[in-house]
Amino acid sequence: MAKVITPRSEDYSRWYTDVVTQSQMADYSPVKGCMVIRPLGYSVWEGMQRELDARFKETGHQNAYFPLFIPESYLHKEAKHVEGFAPECAVVTHGGGKKLEEPLVVRPTSETIIYAMYAKWIRSYRDLPVLINQWANVVRWEMRTRLFLRTTEFLWQEGHTAHATEAEAEDEALRILEIYRRFVEDHMATPVYTGLKTESEKFAGALRTYCIEALMPDGKALQAGTSHNLGQNFSKAFEVKFQTQEGDWAHVWQTSWGVSTRLIGALVMEHGDDNGLSLPPRLAPVQVVIVPIWKTDEEKRRIAEVARLAVEELKGAFRVQADLRDEVSPGWKFNEWELKGVPLRLEIGPKDLEKDQFLAVRRTDRKKTPVPRGALVARTGALLEEIQSEMLEKARAFLRQNTRDATDYTAFKKALDEVGGFFRAHWCGSPECERRIKDETKATIRCIPLEGNREEGRCLICGARSARWVYLARAY
Amino acid sequence: MAKVITPRSEDYSRWYTDVVTQSQMADYSPVKGCMVIRPLGYSVWEGMQRELDARFKETGHQNAYFPLFIPESYLHKEAKHVEGFAPECAVVTHGGGKKLEEPLVVRPTSETIIYAMYAKWIRSYRDLPVLINQWANVVRWEMRTRLFLRTTEFLWQEGHTAHATEAEAEDEALRILEIYRRFVEDHMATPVYTGLKTESEKFAGALRTYCIEALMPDGKALQAGTSHNLGQNFSKAFEVKFQTQEGDWAHVWQTSWGVSTRLIGALVMEHGDDNGLSLPPRLAPVQVVIVPIWKTDEEKRRIAEVARLAVEELKGAFRVQADLRDEVSPGWKFNEWELKGVPLRLEIGPKDLEKDQFLAVRRTDRKKTPVPRGALVARTGALLEEIQSEMLEKARAFLRQNTRDATDYTAFKKALDEVGGFFRAHWCGSPECERRIKDETKATIRCIPLEGNREEGRCLICGARSARWVYLARAY
Repeated sequence: MAKVITPRSEDYSRWYTDVVTQSQMADYSPVKGCMVIRPLGYSVWEGMQRELDARFKETGHQNAYFPLFIPESYLHKEAKHVEGFAPECAVVTHGGGKKLEEPLVVRPTSETIIYAMYAKWIRSYRDLPVLINQWANVVRWEMRTRLFLRTTEFLWQEGHTAHATEAEAEDEALRILEIYRRFVEDHMATPVYTGLKTESEKFAGALRTYCIEALMPDGKALQAGTSHNLGQNFSKAFEVKFQTQEGDWAHVWQTSWGVSTRLIGALVMEHGDDNGLSLPPRLAPVQVVIVPIWKTDEEKRRIAEVARLAVEELKGAFRVQADLRDEVSPGWKFNEWELKGVPLRLEIGPKDLEKDQFLAVRRTDRKKTPVPRGALVARTGALLEEIQSEMLEKARAFLRQNTRDATDYTAFKKALDEVGGFFRAHWCGSPECERRIKDETKATIRCIPLEGNREEGRCLICGARSARWVYLARAY
Repeated sequence: MAKVITPRSEDYSRWYTDVVTQSQMADYSPVKGCMVIRPLGYSVWEGMQRELDARFKETGHQNAYFPLFIPESYLHKEAKHVEGFAPECAVVTHGGGKKLEEPLVVRPTSETIIYAMYAKWIRSYRDLPVLINQWANVVRWEMRTRLFLRTTEFLWQEGHTAHATEAEAEDEALRILEIYRRFVEDHMATPVYTGLKTESEKFAGALRTYCIEALMPDGKALQAGTSHNLGQNFSKAFEVKFQTQEGDWAHVWQTSWGVSTRLIGALVMEHGDDNGLSLPPRLAPVQVVIVPIWKTDEEKRRIAEVARLAVEELKGAFRVQADLRDEVSPGWKFNEWELKGVPLRLEIGPKDLEKDQFLAVRRTDRKKTPVPRGALVARTGALLEEIQSEMLEKARAFLRQNTRDATDYTAFKKALDEVGGFFRAHWCGSPECERRIKDETKATIRCIPLEGNREEGRCLICGARSARWVYLARAY
């Protein structure tokens, strides 16, 4: 607590690292590229898991667990897939004191090992659809790492489904994209653009990759989740076949999809400020903290008792705790709980006691509201909902204000450098124009929106006629 | 389903594998020593996680996540620890296409990497106790593997705590042992003996290892969980120090403790039979299955509707599903749900419909009880509780009947071969006698009970005077 968070306006990157480490969300580990997720960060992840897992199960998915290790040869079965992932792999060459006959790759993603099992399990149309999800750790070797956003090891979920028809697989990929979009908006209070990745940006081995893209306060986009329609690319490579109702043999149609602990990084950036974290109530491990203020022993006795009763009253409905420590001052406690992002603080001092009330202080804007003790549960609930929806509204306004139309390439480059954000621009569809934007501006096509972009225009780069616009941005 | 489970009396080991694979709890993977936990097995694990996690949190523990990889040099910092684990390690030598400067070990357990972080985080008595748990995968290279019971990669939880005093650490180790014992008895319906491991059987690096030991139907013991008082062995190796209230510096006192997916193997063996799995209601992913029986379309229409209503009525209180498939017969469904271990089946045919009842059939003994539709929820609850407690009683009787006093070494060896089970025997405490038993009989001292074993006697091996008896058994 003696340390000070670097102001965001001074150094965005240091601000981010300061918030993550000083709030004790996470820490650097002695292993290069690997992080430690501390209890506060992990409990945010548990909240995300709880919500997403419920949505996956509601839509018929089941969890399972597949091996951490993948024989190197498996990665090679799908040509594009190995090209994309082989350079990032950690390789186990020795086990039990001996050199292995075939090296094992630590999973960077599990398509290959999972589909080898599907080839064994799936025989008939009656076995379909297979709707399996896995919560797991994965490893992708990274040179430049950032806590949560880019680490060699990270935690994620990866869904892997197999279907009898192409249409079913496409529906599944879009159903999951919608689950992701709603979770990120409803719980993380983070609005996103949804759409399709270009050919050059899609998942290695996919037919089509759908994604959700958020905008961070520094004007950079962040890919928050992807859902892939894999077509029959993997089912052909791994011979995942089934007998149809008509008695023929066919390859299954597949999807895979995932979100990771990277979401925690997005959450920190989206809502944090120079005082630290600011967590949306629905994902805050502690939603309400009660901080008593006393001077005399008699005040302490009475106020501590009221605080304890309030915890009892609130804990059925909210994640609440009282900070009754003696060794630190109320002001110190205010700072600490603000740093840790608790959305609502209930202060109670001698004057509040007299008035039979708490003083509620919102983390987001420090706005104060007296809350009568008799209406504690109802008012706390209303305040938390208000905070949750205002956080989303604020983020929505930011996204709207920082999404601009780009029709002139020079003006676009200037705006990109000066203000960042998303740019709606026409693109002719050629890989050449896409590459030129990336090479010249470091911005990429984040996604091709699924609807509403079918107007006529001119490609931002080459001026050719274009029938659609796309979202451009620099990205994490 | 065309396959037949090998009868347990014919070949115990094949029976076990048949039950696990045919019920679709788990499957072999293409990676030697690694298994795939299929949805049924994983949902049992989720049930175990839910229960244990709640008990850990109730007692003040928080979850966190530490890196999968451990620098090889870390393992060497605690002399006994490296001796115990180095031979079992999987080693990553290459990452991102390059040879690593220092090889990384895939965690076989996480004491070393976690305590390196504790050394950084812990400064003052105010930071204590640290009560952290991690749900993770670990890797210990195994040559002879068995699904769930012994696999190269497995899932587990590992608790790691740090305390200001020796007494607190000891209390913690015993508190967790009791949490394990109660979970295994109350939820897995598996009674255990609790006690202390001998010096030669304790965890590599621990001061003392406490354990819970169950008895499998083949007469072999199975270690179901361990809780270690680590003393200051690791805190000295990793310099985990804190400033006391008096201002001195002291090393922390530590514990670590874990249970793993091995528990699922114990569950399968403890209650399974020649028809497959039999799951205790509290851990069964599906507690109740409704199987309708119809011949005519009219019967089908009416009975399917009643089954659907019953699911609606039951699902608030139980994990229930109705099997309305048309393509398989009721008898086929009975077999399948028995194989998958569902504790209670509710049949409903035209005659039951007339009587406005279901016919409840218990998985354990196929005992049938009519259940009036009007009392469905209450009677289902009562039946499930009855099944749960009878499973525990049956297992308790088995443990009692298969725990024998051994006072004569020759008679002990004979009984060990003929009937197996636990043997209460006096042991003088010498490593020589312990080694001789192991070498000559393959039985080991499973644990030294914590109480009630302080009677005078003669060592089973050497005949010397002994002040305590221990539990001996052959073990998994």
